Amino acid sequence: MDYITAIRKQKPLIHNITNIVVANFSANGLLAIGASPVMANAPEEVEEMVSHANALVLNIGTCTQTQVRAMLLAGKTANDQGIPVILDPVGVGATSFRKQAVKQILGEINVSVIRGNTGEIAILGEVGSEMKGVDASTDHINPNIPKQVSRRYGSIVITTGETDVITDGERYSLCKNGVPMLPKVTGSGCLLTAIIGAFVSVADDRYHASVNAVSSYGAASEIAMETVSGPGAFSAALMDSLYNLTNQDVTKRKRIQMFTAQED
Amino acid sequence: MDYITAIRKQKPLIHNITNIVVANFSANGLLAIGASPVMANAPEEVEEMVSHANALVLNIGTCTQTQVRAMLLAGKTANDQGIPVILDPVGVGATSFRKQAVKQILGEINVSVIRGNTGEIAILGEVGSEMKGVDASTDHINPNIPKQVSRRYGSIVITTGETDVITDGERYSLCKNGVPMLPKVTGSGCLLTAIIGAFVSVADDRYHASVNAVSSYGAASEIAMETVSGPGAFSAALMDSLYNLTNQDVTKRKRIQMFTAQED
Amino acid sequence: MDYITAIRKQKPLIHNITNIVVANFSANGLLAIGASPVMANAPEEVEEMVSHANALVLNIGTCTQTQVRAMLLAGKTANDQGIPVILDPVGVGATSFRKQAVKQILGEINVSVIRGNTGEIAILGEVGSEMKGVDASTDHINPNIPKQVSRRYGSIVITTGETDVITDGERYSLCKNGVPMLPKVTGSGCLLTAIIGAFVSVADDRYHASVNAVSSYGAASEIAMETVSGPGAFSAALMDSLYNLTNQDVTKRKRIQMFTAQED
Repeated sequence: MDYITAIRKQKPLIHNITNIVVANFSANGLLAIGASPVMANAPEEVEEMVSHANALVLNIGTCTQTQVRAMLLAGKTANDQGIPVILDPVGVGATSFRKQAVKQILGEINVSVIRGNTGEIAILGEVGSEMKGVDASTDHINPNIPKQVSRRYGSIVITTGETDVITDGERYSLCKNGVPMLPKVTGSGCLLTAIIGAFVSVADDRYHASVNAVSSYGAASEIAMETVSGPGAFSAALMDSLYNLTNQDVTKRKRIQMFTAQED
Repeated sequence: MDYITAIRKQKPLIHNITNIVVANFSANGLLAIGASPVMANAPEEVEEMVSHANALVLNIGTCTQTQVRAMLLAGKTANDQGIPVILDPVGVGATSFRKQAVKQILGEINVSVIRGNTGEIAILGEVGSEMKGVDASTDHINPNIPKQVSRRYGSIVITTGETDVITDGERYSLCKNGVPMLPKVTGSGCLLTAIIGAFVSVADDRYHASVNAVSSYGAASEIAMETVSGPGAFSAALMDSLYNLTNQDVTKRKRIQMFTAQED
Repeated sequence: MDYITAIRKQKPLIHNITNIVVANFSANGLLAIGASPVMANAPEEVEEMVSHANALVLNIGTCTQTQVRAMLLAGKTANDQGIPVILDPVGVGATSFRKQAVKQILGEINVSVIRGNTGEIAILGEVGSEMKGVDASTDHINPNIPKQVSRRYGSIVITTGETDVITDGERYSLCKNGVPMLPKVTGSGCLLTAIIGAFVSVADDRYHASVNAVSSYGAASEIAMETVSGPGAFSAALMDSLYNLTNQDVTKRKRIQMFTAQED
């Protein structure tokens, strides 16, 4: 399926409850890929806002109690209306408050897709992980942890790093697209989470949409990297390559290995 | 009148109560055109802050109850001191909360200029409009709705889209400046609203200042577009072209039709 | 000492409690220089977050009561654990609320470094200064005011402008690095404050680290300015030059005069 063309045609409305660091970058990235972003955080309006939306993206960076409340309200409405919910557990290992917030969200809301770095997903699996801040930890390609987290919450789980793992609890895919400059731009992971929301919102098969989103984003970053020498120029070039990205670019560049449950 | 030179000479202080998505972009755009931005949202300080300012810009994106309260406090002080108030009713059609916020602001504050897209302004005229998120809706060049909204609230009203309409309720102008890349950058409308604040703050005639602001911003976007191929590069180039913009550029590029009340 | 290499090796975690305007820019600048930024503002989590950090950066722009509370909580924990605290009193002269916030922070927290423009530092010295918004005021190279503020609070004090002054109350340095485009980018001062946090976090001698941070940032801005003609391109180029900056660049470009206490 050509997800990119579908997004540009359908212009899905992606409702983001997100943090003050990445709100602008996420909105611009969603516009660049062809989706229609809306940011709304007030508990007073999130239920009504999400009811117009095609996906809800929850991001716990710079989270407050009020925002957690808004996420729960929006998430429940999304669940009631069959709108997919995507969760980014930013820095979940760093504080009890974030751990508690994520626990509550995953306890009360059916989350379609969770995307984090290896350390963040390990925390969700309660397999322990030393975390420092919100950066990506060293990359261990171990599909078992994301698979375990996936089964536990009934969500597609994605860990990103040098090799990305996408799993629905049975099947998993490894994706090698992307460039080392990505983690040098704040919110590059958060933007991928939002873009997964856009892909999933136009898809019949959320697992394939997730794999394609991860690979597409990685491909866009590779194109962006061709002309730059630092994270400032890269950040702008990433927007441009998302804007100009085609399904052919992704097909040509994708470096994905897919594993069925049996091969596990 | 050469508004751009006046702004660079007077460096008007523009107090923005705005959202987490566009705060950075608006501040940078105001600096680029030559104004002096200040962002302050806390009810505890907005009255004192606005009393130093030359214009107050209210933007309801990612609004909360507390921020609405801050807007009302700042707006009243601005009114008392003759400081122009500019309103951007971002996504007003999307939720009752935003509709209520705008209603309260327009009920309690004299707003000098309202800028929105066609759908947002239609909501203010209660002429109905299907809205989805905060993006521009399809462009209908109908000066009657903005004129009606203008008369209702005693404000200059501006709708932006492929053709922009600026009206004081009697006269109206159509402006054809601008590029299709503008709505691909989040906050490009919000920044125009802030820049209108800068133009109005140095003007005797707010209607002409508004027309000139819209045309100047459009001209800057046209210059920016000449060298770029995506929204990331465009966004940076827009800052550069605002920074380097001259009144001559605007005079040369302006595509404005002005209509007096009689021609209506 | 080669601070830049030390930062890239140690990747110090810099916890920022900062405003909605500059959060993204500060995070990206910290990543570019090689540090690991984390933004966390909720009183519920700041004590735990800062306990992982190597420096705490407090920035009062778009401050609220809740954020001041978070700053005090985080600051006390930082003090208890010997983590350096850096303060940016953004626009402290503009409102009583900001003055009160800074007074409370400086009253309850031991702050290692304070960085502001000349007007902001003058306010802290209660020597009076007409302030308008948050922009840099005209540059008066008078080391006496920062020295006085330094002695009063036991902090290293830095005023930035055309000539920067860095003082520990006895010694002071003047730094001439930097470009006039810096104040045309919102948050350029705030980012310097954050970067001072990174330098101080890897240093034995905080005074020398502060001088080097100011000079390094100025040098990076000079390199960035070589290829651009406006603040949009400059902003991205600054990220790139921070990312590619070496100690040799700084040594070659530094324009610092150091004065011992005796020469005063």
